[in-house]
Amino acid sequence: MSIVVQKFGGTSVASVTHIERVASRILKTRREGHSVVVVVSAMGDETDRLDSLAQEVDYSQQEARREIDVLLSSGEQVTISLLSMTLMKMGCRAKSYTGGQIRILTDSAFTRARIHDVDTSKLRADIDAGVVPVIAGFQGVDSEGNITTFGRGGSDTTAVALAAVLEAEECQIFTDVKGVYTTDPKVVEGARCLEKITFEEMLELASLGSGVLHPRAVSFASKYHVPLRVLSSFNDSPGTLITNEENSTMEQAIISGIAFTRDEAKLTVVGVKDIPGIAFKILGPVSDANIEVDMIVQNVAADKSTDFTFTVRRHDYAQATKILKKVAKDIDAREVSGDNKIAKLSMVGVGMRSHAGVASKMFQVLADESINILMISTSEIRISVVISEKYLELAARALHSAFDLANENSELA
Amino acid sequence: MSIVVQKFGGTSVASVTHIERVASRILKTRREGHSVVVVVSAMGDETDRLDSLAQEVDYSQQEARREIDVLLSSGEQVTISLLSMTLMKMGCRAKSYTGGQIRILTDSAFTRARIHDVDTSKLRADIDAGVVPVIAGFQGVDSEGNITTFGRGGSDTTAVALAAVLEAEECQIFTDVKGVYTTDPKVVEGARCLEKITFEEMLELASLGSGVLHPRAVSFASKYHVPLRVLSSFNDSPGTLITNEENSTMEQAIISGIAFTRDEAKLTVVGVKDIPGIAFKILGPVSDANIEVDMIVQNVAADKSTDFTFTVRRHDYAQATKILKKVAKDIDAREVSGDNKIAKLSMVGVGMRSHAGVASKMFQVLADESINILMISTSEIRISVVISEKYLELAARALHSAFDLANENSELA
Repeated sequence: MSIVVQKFGGTSVASVTHIERVASRILKTRREGHSVVVVVSAMGDETDRLDSLAQEVDYSQQEARREIDVLLSSGEQVTISLLSMTLMKMGCRAKSYTGGQIRILTDSAFTRARIHDVDTSKLRADIDAGVVPVIAGFQGVDSEGNITTFGRGGSDTTAVALAAVLEAEECQIFTDVKGVYTTDPKVVEGARCLEKITFEEMLELASLGSGVLHPRAVSFASKYHVPLRVLSSFNDSPGTLITNEENSTMEQAIISGIAFTRDEAKLTVVGVKDIPGIAFKILGPVSDANIEVDMIVQNVAADKSTDFTFTVRRHDYAQATKILKKVAKDIDAREVSGDNKIAKLSMVGVGMRSHAGVASKMFQVLADESINILMISTSEIRISVVISEKYLELAARALHSAFDLANENSELA
Repeated sequence: MSIVVQKFGGTSVASVTHIERVASRILKTRREGHSVVVVVSAMGDETDRLDSLAQEVDYSQQEARREIDVLLSSGEQVTISLLSMTLMKMGCRAKSYTGGQIRILTDSAFTRARIHDVDTSKLRADIDAGVVPVIAGFQGVDSEGNITTFGRGGSDTTAVALAAVLEAEECQIFTDVKGVYTTDPKVVEGARCLEKITFEEMLELASLGSGVLHPRAVSFASKYHVPLRVLSSFNDSPGTLITNEENSTMEQAIISGIAFTRDEAKLTVVGVKDIPGIAFKILGPVSDANIEVDMIVQNVAADKSTDFTFTVRRHDYAQATKILKKVAKDIDAREVSGDNKIAKLSMVGVGMRSHAGVASKMFQVLADESINILMISTSEIRISVVISEKYLELAARALHSAFDLANENSELA
């Protein structure tokens, strides 16, 4: 009998009523002839509540991280218990496991641990006995028995890891959306739920803040060839299947989706001497402050001085500006300018590889709408532009329409 | 260096501010030259909140008990983490442990497990390294790694067990009261906090609902000769020390305390034929319904018929009445009568052993106040009477005064 791993996130298990709906969904999958292994997150905002208790203690030294994991991992423990009882009540044998009880073995990097190994013996025994194992996501245990957690997207990672070691037919990630869309349906009316997408594309979309799946879970699934499906816990639609490109039988669309994020700010150090090591002198102090830098652009002017521009998350803008002003003095730069009213928009698609002209068409569409491009960066299957935030919706709609993403089998015109 | 085990209950750790106060108390004990091992309960009403989630699922079959323990044990996990971080913040090394991490090994009787063994290796290593181990009370793990809990009073039991295996100098139970009182200070103004009391007396008081300590923890401490101290987490008074009688150097008071409980109801089957096995015929169906029976009185009248009276907890009164009415028909008894406006009052003291006349003086005092005694039961160191609830305060005050309990070195007049 084929094994399906089903993962239900916080909004899907926010109350006992929600949990009953989740239990029904699991039973439906069993009736369809599958063995089900379940992974759940903490209920609703529970992780935030626990986190705020830790904030209140206000001790964030390295040595506190072990205790943060003890704290946060308690949230999932509540859900596995309630879901197991609910399944039993519905006549289905079930058994809960914390990460430590399964023995999801990790390193000792508390709050961002990496999985080393998963013991499948209890899971196999349960599956053979017709019992549904219900596993706490987001958590494991190190070789000394300390509780560890995996950081953001941790429950997705647990689900993918279990699917990998159990050689599951599919790893299903249940969310509060129907699947992966061509773009944000809240912004573009014609946004369409994709039937399939490649890991590579999903990775680009995930890291661009489409929010459905964490990049880590996607790359984990890709590495272990685990077919991943994103679907809604609130209806019965098939959702979006994420697979390897080579396994995909569909005709490959050129563009899969348009992703965007407003969580952006741009900083420029103006009039920098173009000497070796200057990028490190500017970005070193920024990354020392744990500020993540995304896009970086440097262009050299005729007078051998350069403007150095990069983007950071918006909440890091003030701190980054402060750091840069000091750096600018040290390296004798002219000034520091910035803008935190920008947004990043990206078009993603494996079809770009074999189709030239996507970038030029994209720039044409934006030009037609009089939208100024502030920065550009590209990867093999992605083109990203930074634009003024106020044009974001306009740009997304214009591109979605120009590339005909609302139609399933569209080709580049 | 001597080891002191300190246990802090839910009200003592109800918030981060409370937890800071607890941490200060622990540091004070360390400054006094002790190694401290800490046991904590879930914060405030957290166990009740978790329990109500289980109620909502509404599945109470035997097989659900394993999951109930997974659920409830998450509460203490939050406290150990927050307290450990708080101790670290105050410059004291600390480390949290769930019951399973220490390896408090229990049987598999979920929701009411019994401790079989405690592994002291991690605790000893921490103590030797100057680290304060902070242990989740109320929970352990069975030989298969399933989480178990100990039922009511479970955290006290954890503390006593740890004190026993570590041969601690003292096991200190911090509560929201100053210690063990001669009687309820809310009812009798002159109620006095006792300096010392024997395990035997404490057991009688505990099982009579004085509420400070659970009988199980007391009998556990008595069995393993662990000196137990009840004290307040909100002030610095020394509280009440509970020890073995033989170790006690104090002049033994005749009466240690007066305990009472209003959680009582009385049922009488009137006109029962006095034949062998009749008690079982009446009480069998009652205990089959999981109703606990406390005092039992049977007196045979001249006509060989008998009235059979017993007490139950008040919330079991309605159900017990229903059961008895059916039983009365089956055994051809005359009728069933009852009263749920009664209370039980008990005088406890090891000094009773060597002093006759305590009972008669007690009855005299009640008679002087025109209080009718409905039932009487005695043990070697206790006399309990059932009276009408409305006379309870009057009885307690009259007896407290007549036996001069407000004065430390009182003797029977």
